[in-house]
Amino acid sequence: MKRHRVIFQPAGRRGEIQEGKTLLEAAQVLGVDIEGLCGGKKVCGKCKVRVEVGFFEKDNIESGMHHLSPITGEELKHIKPEDGPNIRLACAAEIHGDLKIFVPERSRAGKQVVRKAAKELSITLDPAVKKYNIELKPPSLEEMTTGDMERVLDFLEEKYGLKGLSFDYYALKELQDVLRKGQWRATVSVWMDREVIKVEPGFVENSYGIAVDIGTTTVVGYLCDLNTGKVINTESMMNPQVPYGEDVMSRITYAMTNPEGLQKMQSAIIEGLNEIIRNVTADLRTDGKDGGTAIVDMTVVFNTAMHHIFLGLNPEYIGRSPFIPALQHSIDLKARDIGINISPGAYLHVLPLEAGFVGADNVGVLIAEEPYNQDEIVLIIDIGTNGELLLGNRQRICSTSCATGPAFEGAQIKFGMRAAPGAIEKVRIDPETKECYYKVIGKADWHTYLQEVNAKGICGSGIIDAVAEMFKAGIIDKTGKFVKGLDTPRIRLDSDGKPEYVLAWAEETSIGTDITITQADVRALQLAKAALYAGAKLMMKKMGIQKLDRVILAGAFGSYIDRESALTLGMFPDCDIKRVYAVGNAAGDGARMALLNREKRREASERARWVEFMEIAVEPDFEREFMQAMHIPHMKDSFPHLKSLFEKKNLHISIRG
Amino acid sequence: MKRHRVIFQPAGRRGEIQEGKTLLEAAQVLGVDIEGLCGGKKVCGKCKVRVEVGFFEKDNIESGMHHLSPITGEELKHIKPEDGPNIRLACAAEIHGDLKIFVPERSRAGKQVVRKAAKELSITLDPAVKKYNIELKPPSLEEMTTGDMERVLDFLEEKYGLKGLSFDYYALKELQDVLRKGQWRATVSVWMDREVIKVEPGFVENSYGIAVDIGTTTVVGYLCDLNTGKVINTESMMNPQVPYGEDVMSRITYAMTNPEGLQKMQSAIIEGLNEIIRNVTADLRTDGKDGGTAIVDMTVVFNTAMHHIFLGLNPEYIGRSPFIPALQHSIDLKARDIGINISPGAYLHVLPLEAGFVGADNVGVLIAEEPYNQDEIVLIIDIGTNGELLLGNRQRICSTSCATGPAFEGAQIKFGMRAAPGAIEKVRIDPETKECYYKVIGKADWHTYLQEVNAKGICGSGIIDAVAEMFKAGIIDKTGKFVKGLDTPRIRLDSDGKPEYVLAWAEETSIGTDITITQADVRALQLAKAALYAGAKLMMKKMGIQKLDRVILAGAFGSYIDRESALTLGMFPDCDIKRVYAVGNAAGDGARMALLNREKRREASERARWVEFMEIAVEPDFEREFMQAMHIPHMKDSFPHLKSLFEKKNLHISIRG
Repeated sequence: MKRHRVIFQPAGRRGEIQEGKTLLEAAQVLGVDIEGLCGGKKVCGKCKVRVEVGFFEKDNIESGMHHLSPITGEELKHIKPEDGPNIRLACAAEIHGDLKIFVPERSRAGKQVVRKAAKELSITLDPAVKKYNIELKPPSLEEMTTGDMERVLDFLEEKYGLKGLSFDYYALKELQDVLRKGQWRATVSVWMDREVIKVEPGFVENSYGIAVDIGTTTVVGYLCDLNTGKVINTESMMNPQVPYGEDVMSRITYAMTNPEGLQKMQSAIIEGLNEIIRNVTADLRTDGKDGGTAIVDMTVVFNTAMHHIFLGLNPEYIGRSPFIPALQHSIDLKARDIGINISPGAYLHVLPLEAGFVGADNVGVLIAEEPYNQDEIVLIIDIGTNGELLLGNRQRICSTSCATGPAFEGAQIKFGMRAAPGAIEKVRIDPETKECYYKVIGKADWHTYLQEVNAKGICGSGIIDAVAEMFKAGIIDKTGKFVKGLDTPRIRLDSDGKPEYVLAWAEETSIGTDITITQADVRALQLAKAALYAGAKLMMKKMGIQKLDRVILAGAFGSYIDRESALTLGMFPDCDIKRVYAVGNAAGDGARMALLNREKRREASERARWVEFMEIAVEPDFEREFMQAMHIPHMKDSFPHLKSLFEKKNLHISIRG
Repeated sequence: MKRHRVIFQPAGRRGEIQEGKTLLEAAQVLGVDIEGLCGGKKVCGKCKVRVEVGFFEKDNIESGMHHLSPITGEELKHIKPEDGPNIRLACAAEIHGDLKIFVPERSRAGKQVVRKAAKELSITLDPAVKKYNIELKPPSLEEMTTGDMERVLDFLEEKYGLKGLSFDYYALKELQDVLRKGQWRATVSVWMDREVIKVEPGFVENSYGIAVDIGTTTVVGYLCDLNTGKVINTESMMNPQVPYGEDVMSRITYAMTNPEGLQKMQSAIIEGLNEIIRNVTADLRTDGKDGGTAIVDMTVVFNTAMHHIFLGLNPEYIGRSPFIPALQHSIDLKARDIGINISPGAYLHVLPLEAGFVGADNVGVLIAEEPYNQDEIVLIIDIGTNGELLLGNRQRICSTSCATGPAFEGAQIKFGMRAAPGAIEKVRIDPETKECYYKVIGKADWHTYLQEVNAKGICGSGIIDAVAEMFKAGIIDKTGKFVKGLDTPRIRLDSDGKPEYVLAWAEETSIGTDITITQADVRALQLAKAALYAGAKLMMKKMGIQKLDRVILAGAFGSYIDRESALTLGMFPDCDIKRVYAVGNAAGDGARMALLNREKRREASERARWVEFMEIAVEPDFEREFMQAMHIPHMKDSFPHLKSLFEKKNLHISIRG
């Protein structure tokens, strides 16, 4: 096969790429991050790149539009005059000659910012893996009929009452040298009172585990001290599967349509996790041993699709009726069997799935929040790339999954982007002047040193804020339509003749154009919030619940959402704003709890089966409820708490009370 | 590092070898088999090679003695004038230039011939792995909350009463496609009623396991049908660790003195086993899948040192006081964890060790012969590279290990060799004429087509026969000394002035020299048999046993031994020759039994601990007993059965009756 030289700027990556590959594929090969929200399906138009034209002496390369496949109608739909000359969609343009490509800033996939600090959990420590000190008499000829392993097992039985343990093969291989190096003192790690999974010379106190939450977009790992339960270190990264598809369905499609697609995505996430493990344990390196080997236990949560891909299970059947997962129950497997670089004898505990797309991450939310131990009626909304709902109390809890679409994560929004540096994350609009104030990610995050950045786009929490504020400021009405005749330069018509609101003027941004919220953006958000609302409403109806005592907004994302904006938009039925809580990454909390307390694993297995899954989208009422929920906050339902909130704030907005 | 070209003839192997390596190391690298009984310690003198001198146009190579390190005193001890010119010991000569080396036939390691046919066992079939047919309803939307794995497990519980099974990760990965390929009919393999280790589409009846006996010298694999218990195929090979040392101690030394020596030997045996598995399952290949994947269970026996090396456990501590093994109990590990290519979910069951060097192979002998179920007093002699004894009945059984040395396997014998083609395996001597008749391996083996071969040396059973016949013919006396003044050209003095008996004249051989039994050979055999006899005698004494009801000669080797020759030599205390049995490879039989019946595994674990290990060599009486047992058949003990046997045959030999 013929190969061509391709150079990506400003990253400066270069390499030889096979004839006929797309620019997006080339970027993936060369490690250049290009936004590809739709997963290369030529739908989102986010992957625009500019072809540098001419002969470049320094690189000794001639680049030009004629070195790419002819432009297609699908591409032309996305490319606007304001994009400038020589623009192509990276996912569509195929390579037929040497090329030099410039990736404009808005097409670059930034590093996601994730709220890192994990909240303190109050939980009884009873981890699945415990360490025991052992001290043997040096062997003598009189005792020669006993082996090293038998002496260790006898000691564990005698001293600690642990009976009938098996020995992991990798631990066994280390045993002889460990016992002698420690002069017959050693520390053994025992998994679930059943198996010796690690041996260390001398008396070792430290014991580490890692809890992992693999989101569609973000992966977070929490390194925990199994003796104290404290989180010692947290590390997050964008899910390295993102280049294969932004959402769950794109990745399932990728697995189905690409030979070895599943394997590629599995390798990507395993490698990503190993990187997290490397970073999170950097301080634990000893004796030239990888710090990861200090980790003796691991728990992991994710949605059903991420679960399958992570385990190398074909996700095809969960993507189409009758939506059968490979398994639902929790499973323990040797981390080494899947290529995870922790202590070689250690297990990986995969939490159970609930049903359909409601995965182990929702089970994590469930055991972290324990609504089943409460009398109050709680609605838990876990907002990720999908929305998942839990509703009920100790009597009964139902769950469902809502196809919110990716609007809450910035996709399908004209200037939408991930919660990365440069994203507008908070918005306030003055109801009088219609002037706008915003906060950009990267200007006030004390966790990492980031350069001052100007606005580049808007992330989910910013969109929720913006639309709620536009409503409160009277810029849009309750149907989501722009109100006509307002006298402010911030409201104008776009090139399609549709109204839009300017959040940031070109000179405030790093992309050189105004950042706006369009009519279509408002619609996308209405669709997303209506899905959540209709889901919650129908669940309440079917369960005979009149009102919510409490609403919990969860999600790595959840901690950013402004509660008032969420209530204003009508993301959920009315509730006292003081009883709305943002709990952050509850799924991750659940994974940590399962790491720290084995009873929580049992609870997870039991409760995952106990929770009733409701398939809401097939309800006959769904469409009507969905349509009514499109209104802000709602077409018919009353919002007494919101009404009184507005009244207190002197906002004259007519809503049902 | 400088490298030199080395060519080995007649094999024709060639390659570039690093300066300073020995010829033996070069041979190992290039895959040329050179006899190295002592493991490169310059002791056995078996690895003599001839340096081809001059310039060889075809190979464009100049070879000469000056391309090797100077000859040493140790080498000169072994090199005799009759060896011809330019002879060196391959283990001693270091490479310092290009070389062409000829390996004379007697220095070539032939392919061991192993009695292949496995005897039929009568045993109740209850294998650890069983196959179950399952048939599921195709999934529908109504049942969507259940996963594939759960449906399979539910079926197994409902139909077969199997509860709480876990699922091997590799089996799980296959499950989805298997169920759909088989249109919801499948066959699952369940290990020990505990874990699903394999899934296959449709209803599959065939179920295979492999039992393996890893001897120091020989490895045998028995492919068994788990439905019938029958051996379908047997395959054997020389232990690929032989180049690293002929006996157990040489290999332990190799592991201790060579970096990665243990790993090299472990890899060698694993690769060897995989070759056996490939050959034995050649007919089971389907759908392009390796036949080995049809194997769902595996058992393995070996002595303690082979056990440790196979498992990658440091054998150092079993080689020196206080002789502590890494473990003694049986262990189940995933075959994949050790690189064995059978079904990826399958386990490998390692039988327990007894004590000291008495290993899992002796446990195999124990459960195959079941002396613990008998009233008769049985002595079981398992002759491998070491001799292992079991003595007793249902009341009590003791075991011990005897340092017989490798004489029974042809080492330390001037013309000794393994039981390979060209080896003299049976000998008869006419007491009148002192003329000799012999049988050579390779002339009458109907299992494999072998070319007619002439004698090249003598293997263990041949030596036993030869020395026993020399005694019966009056060539040697009961002290083992050559009788003087016999008028036959077959008896003569060798170059050291010591007497020797000519078994085969040069013209009958393929090595061009007479094959003889020397005075030193007789001594070596006396030492070996005396060790066995003294061991048995002392055990009897300590256990208060007067006489043996039965003697069982076991060993892959055992089936070749002539019972009368063994009794004549006094390898064991007197016993009715009709009550002496050669049972063949009893260790392998035990491995097969453990494969076919899980109760046998329990029995092995229990009996391995129940058997009392006796350290015989440290007994104060040992030396005296050993000295007395050097006589043929014995200095003092009476042999009434042997006496009457001789009388019946009209042999006028004076022994105590």
